[in-house]
Amino acid sequence: MSKSNLGLVDTCDTFPYYQVDADLYAASISTYYELRVHDHDYALGYMLPSVAEVFRNVPHWEINDDDRILTLLSGGNSSERSQFVEATLLALRETGHFKVLNKWRNELYPVYGRNKEVLFNVERSASPLFGIVTYGVHLTAYTRSTEGELKIWIPRRARTKQTYGGMLDNAVAGGISSGESPFESLVRECAEEASLPADLVRSRVRGCGTVTYYYIRTEEAGGETNLLQPECQYVYDIELPEDVTLTPGDDEVEEFYLWGVAEVREHMAKGEFKPNCALVMLDFFIRHGVVTPENEKDYVEIVSRLHRRLEFPTL
Amino acid sequence: MSKSNLGLVDTCDTFPYYQVDADLYAASISTYYELRVHDHDYALGYMLPSVAEVFRNVPHWEINDDDRILTLLSGGNSSERSQFVEATLLALRETGHFKVLNKWRNELYPVYGRNKEVLFNVERSASPLFGIVTYGVHLTAYTRSTEGELKIWIPRRARTKQTYGGMLDNAVAGGISSGESPFESLVRECAEEASLPADLVRSRVRGCGTVTYYYIRTEEAGGETNLLQPECQYVYDIELPEDVTLTPGDDEVEEFYLWGVAEVREHMAKGEFKPNCALVMLDFFIRHGVVTPENEKDYVEIVSRLHRRLEFPTL
Repeated sequence: MSKSNLGLVDTCDTFPYYQVDADLYAASISTYYELRVHDHDYALGYMLPSVAEVFRNVPHWEINDDDRILTLLSGGNSSERSQFVEATLLALRETGHFKVLNKWRNELYPVYGRNKEVLFNVERSASPLFGIVTYGVHLTAYTRSTEGELKIWIPRRARTKQTYGGMLDNAVAGGISSGESPFESLVRECAEEASLPADLVRSRVRGCGTVTYYYIRTEEAGGETNLLQPECQYVYDIELPEDVTLTPGDDEVEEFYLWGVAEVREHMAKGEFKPNCALVMLDFFIRHGVVTPENEKDYVEIVSRLHRRLEFPTL
Repeated sequence: MSKSNLGLVDTCDTFPYYQVDADLYAASISTYYELRVHDHDYALGYMLPSVAEVFRNVPHWEINDDDRILTLLSGGNSSERSQFVEATLLALRETGHFKVLNKWRNELYPVYGRNKEVLFNVERSASPLFGIVTYGVHLTAYTRSTEGELKIWIPRRARTKQTYGGMLDNAVAGGISSGESPFESLVRECAEEASLPADLVRSRVRGCGTVTYYYIRTEEAGGETNLLQPECQYVYDIELPEDVTLTPGDDEVEEFYLWGVAEVREHMAKGEFKPNCALVMLDFFIRHGVVTPENEKDYVEIVSRLHRRLEFPTL
């Protein structure tokens, strides 16, 4: 029951593509509601009808069933819109209706408009209800022995974690809060999650692009299923000296392994990685010439799908 | 009149995106004819109506104006289809109708179906008439001084070249003929174009992914304008010792420069690079942490667009 590399992509980048199957895409889109803000006539995310329904008759919101659009009507700027969104979400949290809101984080994620302006900020745990694009950082930490052998640091998530407990992860990974730059977010997470000193990270880490995909949430993600989650992960590499050891800096990681390429690929094929972390590993293997056009028949499709152009404005 | 990095992408990846502007995309698509082969009900490329028109009443071809489809009716396998396509193209070349066929190359490009099978092979110069996906290899050759400074080998195309004469290019670049693997194609081109020995290339070169885009041909490309050209370039990096010098191996290159990053970016911004070569440079700068989320406001869009998922089956 080994998973191919394309199978790993299929597990995480699950939303259909217009350019591959226009009918399937149209049928899929037609079941959702668009999220919009007043005076901006484009979608910021797709929402399940069962979620949009809960906003009916709620002050500051308007639901249009003919065009299948939920619009935040109030607020003339980012700060005002954010307040109206927060007020609605706090009230919804009190009702207990949405399971995802039970994991309230007190952390804000930004939602961007077409001019890269922040249209509003939203509580992190609510982002999959709105189907908005969220941003994160993922780091691959590796060593190269004097004989040239590549070894990669792989953490196992704490088994007590509510989402993807016990699964394998990237060395460091985390969401980017509103107002934080990707690089500063990475430096902070490196200290928190892997006990990597900021100086070492600043001097050695290298930004290497993004991995973008469009995930439809499953049970493993926790809370309501089938919520839509388009994501953009800024990916970084760090080559470490052989004498640097990664150790858990908090209780989110159970243990770090230092594995050769074959061992990492074996665990990927067994489906032991958190889905989006498998994609970041694949991107690393492609950029480092481990996965090649000659040994991977789906190379062209995989590279494109790791860099999906999302339907919504991005930063 | 300096070009932004996104401006460089806009110059090469010119075909509209459904997910950005569905109406514009639909309006654009509706002007083209799909290329198909019998018994395979999907598009292999988009053709201008003025090109499809020339196939009307030609044996082995059927034009359907209602659905805007041109179908190769004859041939039950790749070899037979290739013969019918060649016969038609040889006859068309005799008429002198299509300017692109005046540059007949005697080189075959493969056209793939959904199962990655070769549906037929087609003369290289005819590929933009059919709008099929073509494949190539692009190499970035660089050195790193002991102080860590990155320098990049940049060739200037011979001014006598019919296409993009005098423009800047990637160290080595070429199309992949039918039956050739990307890697073997690269090794061959390295010797031909940059006098790089095969042993050196095999031991040092690293595959780093693909750059894919959808180009609408302009006058600079030669021949008919507005032909559609979706392309997939396999990208490779090679770090060279400082004492290795690139020299033209044939008359396609006028001269090689060894430039620092700032100098390369300056020439990119001036629009001096062949459009798709600027994209390969951008991908290199992103993978190597030169262009970052912090210094490039269009980072997320650029990374996605350098890896466009094409509308047609790919290898």
